[in-house]
Amino acid sequence: MSYNLLKGKRGIVFGALNDMSIAWKVAEKAVAEGAHITLTNTPVAVRMGEVSQLGEKLNAEIIPADATNVDDLKLVFERSMEVLGGKIDFVLHSIGMSPNVRKKRLYDDLDYDLLDKTLDISAVSFHKMLQVAKKLDAISDNGSIVALSYVAAQRTLFGYNDMADAKALLESIARSFGYIYGREHGVRINTISQSPTLTTAGSGVKGMESLMDFANRMSPLGNATADECADYCMVMFSDLTKKVTMQNLFHDGGFSSMGMSLRAMDQYEKSFDEYRNEDGTIQYG
Amino acid sequence: MSYNLLKGKRGIVFGALNDMSIAWKVAEKAVAEGAHITLTNTPVAVRMGEVSQLGEKLNAEIIPADATNVDDLKLVFERSMEVLGGKIDFVLHSIGMSPNVRKKRLYDDLDYDLLDKTLDISAVSFHKMLQVAKKLDAISDNGSIVALSYVAAQRTLFGYNDMADAKALLESIARSFGYIYGREHGVRINTISQSPTLTTAGSGVKGMESLMDFANRMSPLGNATADECADYCMVMFSDLTKKVTMQNLFHDGGFSSMGMSLRAMDQYEKSFDEYRNEDGTIQYG
Amino acid sequence: MSYNLLKGKRGIVFGALNDMSIAWKVAEKAVAEGAHITLTNTPVAVRMGEVSQLGEKLNAEIIPADATNVDDLKLVFERSMEVLGGKIDFVLHSIGMSPNVRKKRLYDDLDYDLLDKTLDISAVSFHKMLQVAKKLDAISDNGSIVALSYVAAQRTLFGYNDMADAKALLESIARSFGYIYGREHGVRINTISQSPTLTTAGSGVKGMESLMDFANRMSPLGNATADECADYCMVMFSDLTKKVTMQNLFHDGGFSSMGMSLRAMDQYEKSFDEYRNEDGTIQYG
Amino acid sequence: MSYNLLKGKRGIVFGALNDMSIAWKVAEKAVAEGAHITLTNTPVAVRMGEVSQLGEKLNAEIIPADATNVDDLKLVFERSMEVLGGKIDFVLHSIGMSPNVRKKRLYDDLDYDLLDKTLDISAVSFHKMLQVAKKLDAISDNGSIVALSYVAAQRTLFGYNDMADAKALLESIARSFGYIYGREHGVRINTISQSPTLTTAGSGVKGMESLMDFANRMSPLGNATADECADYCMVMFSDLTKKVTMQNLFHDGGFSSMGMSLRAMDQYEKSFDEYRNEDGTIQYG
Repeated sequence: MSYNLLKGKRGIVFGALNDMSIAWKVAEKAVAEGAHITLTNTPVAVRMGEVSQLGEKLNAEIIPADATNVDDLKLVFERSMEVLGGKIDFVLHSIGMSPNVRKKRLYDDLDYDLLDKTLDISAVSFHKMLQVAKKLDAISDNGSIVALSYVAAQRTLFGYNDMADAKALLESIARSFGYIYGREHGVRINTISQSPTLTTAGSGVKGMESLMDFANRMSPLGNATADECADYCMVMFSDLTKKVTMQNLFHDGGFSSMGMSLRAMDQYEKSFDEYRNEDGTIQYG
Repeated sequence: MSYNLLKGKRGIVFGALNDMSIAWKVAEKAVAEGAHITLTNTPVAVRMGEVSQLGEKLNAEIIPADATNVDDLKLVFERSMEVLGGKIDFVLHSIGMSPNVRKKRLYDDLDYDLLDKTLDISAVSFHKMLQVAKKLDAISDNGSIVALSYVAAQRTLFGYNDMADAKALLESIARSFGYIYGREHGVRINTISQSPTLTTAGSGVKGMESLMDFANRMSPLGNATADECADYCMVMFSDLTKKVTMQNLFHDGGFSSMGMSLRAMDQYEKSFDEYRNEDGTIQYG
Repeated sequence: MSYNLLKGKRGIVFGALNDMSIAWKVAEKAVAEGAHITLTNTPVAVRMGEVSQLGEKLNAEIIPADATNVDDLKLVFERSMEVLGGKIDFVLHSIGMSPNVRKKRLYDDLDYDLLDKTLDISAVSFHKMLQVAKKLDAISDNGSIVALSYVAAQRTLFGYNDMADAKALLESIARSFGYIYGREHGVRINTISQSPTLTTAGSGVKGMESLMDFANRMSPLGNATADECADYCMVMFSDLTKKVTMQNLFHDGGFSSMGMSLRAMDQYEKSFDEYRNEDGTIQYG
Repeated sequence: MSYNLLKGKRGIVFGALNDMSIAWKVAEKAVAEGAHITLTNTPVAVRMGEVSQLGEKLNAEIIPADATNVDDLKLVFERSMEVLGGKIDFVLHSIGMSPNVRKKRLYDDLDYDLLDKTLDISAVSFHKMLQVAKKLDAISDNGSIVALSYVAAQRTLFGYNDMADAKALLESIARSFGYIYGREHGVRINTISQSPTLTTAGSGVKGMESLMDFANRMSPLGNATADECADYCMVMFSDLTKKVTMQNLFHDGGFSSMGMSLRAMDQYEKSFDEYRNEDGTIQYG
């Protein structure tokens, strides 16, 4: 089902890796909605990954680039404008990685060089992208830029580690730059705070499966999928959301507004089964 | 410009009064996007207002109803399902009025019978609408319900009076009922927190013009119009936002995320012109 | 341990019922910190309850009053000023009750007369108290007023029912009136959002014990007790927090800022024990 | 006026520069409340500044240290425990500086090496401090740690530049580490979000005077002073707030909960005086 929501628009999608990636789905849907796009990811990801297949399928040029490198980012925007034939109407930033998590450094034993990298890759890259784009005057008036975030920016989840801080920084950059890009060019900048999603990135996080089960039972609509997230990106890129900016938009089946659901609590209570009294009441510890 | 976003969907629009109303624009756009709708407002508003012209234009039946009256609400849903030929896919609640404001009662001199009315009309009516709809099983699975709110629910604005409390209550009802309707029928319930808008309702608020000027200068994208708000409603009613629920969505050009803009401060500083020293510096009081 | 934090101050404590009540602890601590106070609760609660013992112990007059009745509230403030010898420096509002919960009406089957009562008792009573106090000029300049709230005002918890909406309304009233009372008399108004607490009031809420266990495991510092809440009230009544107003202050061991703790997730995972594979991995449903 | 709130407690105060500094006031009040403390600031600040006078006056050892340097931080904690005779009960982090602001780099023309420094000095230093303290087991059970923040972490203020992002990161670190330090040692970690304050640090921010005037008129209680902020720190360090953690506490006279005050709007409207029509109505642009 498509609506021509992005007919004639030009876009850049950062971060598509494989068909589990949200960015992959966004690329597919954007093209289905009538957009012309380019794809970009790190040179390693481009070489190793399946993104070239996606590029072929969507007739989208792939521009290898390190999103923490200003010169690479320049190239992405310059080449995209050249290939797509004009200024860019929308951009997706779907980039995040914590070397501390990869190296299994706990949050109270962080390596600070790695923390710098977490912040640079997952948050400062967004500022760099925006600053490069603005200096090149690469975004159309009323363009729309979205970065993907997670509720850990507001609430602590064990094991999410320094990525939580990176997401808080990312959301702040969206506001700070949203003010400037908005007042000068009407460009809106938002973050979408997505349900936990079993992407390649998400799968590295500790206890991910249990967390997803819990989030799913907590959320009245269940966890949002990568596919549904891509749908939400379409409306944020469309002309129907021109006055939404500097917002963090929860796309999570209601999780962020839940304190406790019956379904999650029912499951939780089962954990006490072995402590049940003979009359069936639970003997709490 | 339309996209067939609501093709084949059935909707009810509460609160269209005249062509300044957000609800009026929502009705027009919903039909343009392919929906069939009914309109409802109070019997007085229907008799006195221009809503009958809108009904004719959109080929939409008008059902007079007092939104604080459970029986009237039943009628609205029953009649709408009958006229539209099935369960309802989307509903707009655009209802708010403070008799205390009308009677010029200040917030520290409220009449409590009038406060009950403010809360009943502007917030509890939303619960009644939802409870009636659920009991009648009148909303389609994955249906979408939106109520209009204002930032006064989070932050105090002088003169907005007991409407601020009503909006806070409204947003809470959206969350509370959103949990239940979501888990049982996948129905999502959200509020859109709109820029100050010069509707007939908005025009009663004290100092509205200056406030709108200030909000406009504070917001990087300027105040959102009624027309743009209707666009946002379209995406919230569409199938592209199926996992967004229990949220308060700011549609305000960025106002809610601003502390101070250069443009607003430039204007503010002009207020000190008469207190300027000879060297141009401002002599603050 | 006491610090003379409230030496010479005059206070009114609404809502002490028995020694499980937060208000009871607040009364005791306020007197220990050097304050002179009066106590008030409904005539029924005064007749049936143990509050008279508290009054004797603290040498505090008990003034029976219905907090939804403006005349009764006048009496409370007038009599308190008379007994205590001057304007009031601090007030605790610890009042909340849902007849819908008592009658086991579910949230999608509310009785609207009972909802009015929930809102009137649990939230509008706070406005009435403030409006009466201001009209009588009964609060000292820089006085401090606190109402007790719960995280359900922001996030939905199954079974908390219409009390969630009442708490959202209560917190809004604190902001709205806080603006007016602050600008005119420097009076600050805040809400304290307390951990679930096994008071007589709290014990009526569905699934309270499991919820408290979950909240306790989620909160890095564990649930806050009634006693600790009373401590927090002391600092909010003292002269050390003169510029804190219109805030909702979480006193919950960190719960409100948690997405998921290791301790809660460990417990949650036990619920899947019967679905464990032979290799110990969990087979999620 | 003092209460012996910190009697026998040991504390470290980071960031006292001169008698305008909040940290300076905190040091003075902490000692007045019965604490023994050490002071620390950068070697340059110690050499050039007046902090040595403060040290003498309070009988507090001054430990020069670069708060971005882990070894220096170790020294601060080790030496403090040695001098004060035991584990530390409270710490104030009052450190923030943006080289981008100093070099007048605008937010859309940031130097990224300088941004790294802003983040490292103003936010990551807090993590380093906490990690060092925890590894040394230098904080007493139930100890209290406070960092100073600003509303720019939530809302954009022109000219505050990359300090806004640093404050967002700082507040996230408080939550992330607050979870871990809380669950393991009952240590609470909070940020206090203070009114704009004319400290040496604050005075570098663009348009600071007008902003302070506006904030003052917006806040029902007016801007909070450095002195009052120190009072609030006392209660957060005391045993009366043992269950408050992972919170950002606004200490701002109500500013954060205001949308528009009458007083600020009255002033704002004066800016249109030259555009007034003959009948007194304002002709908005």
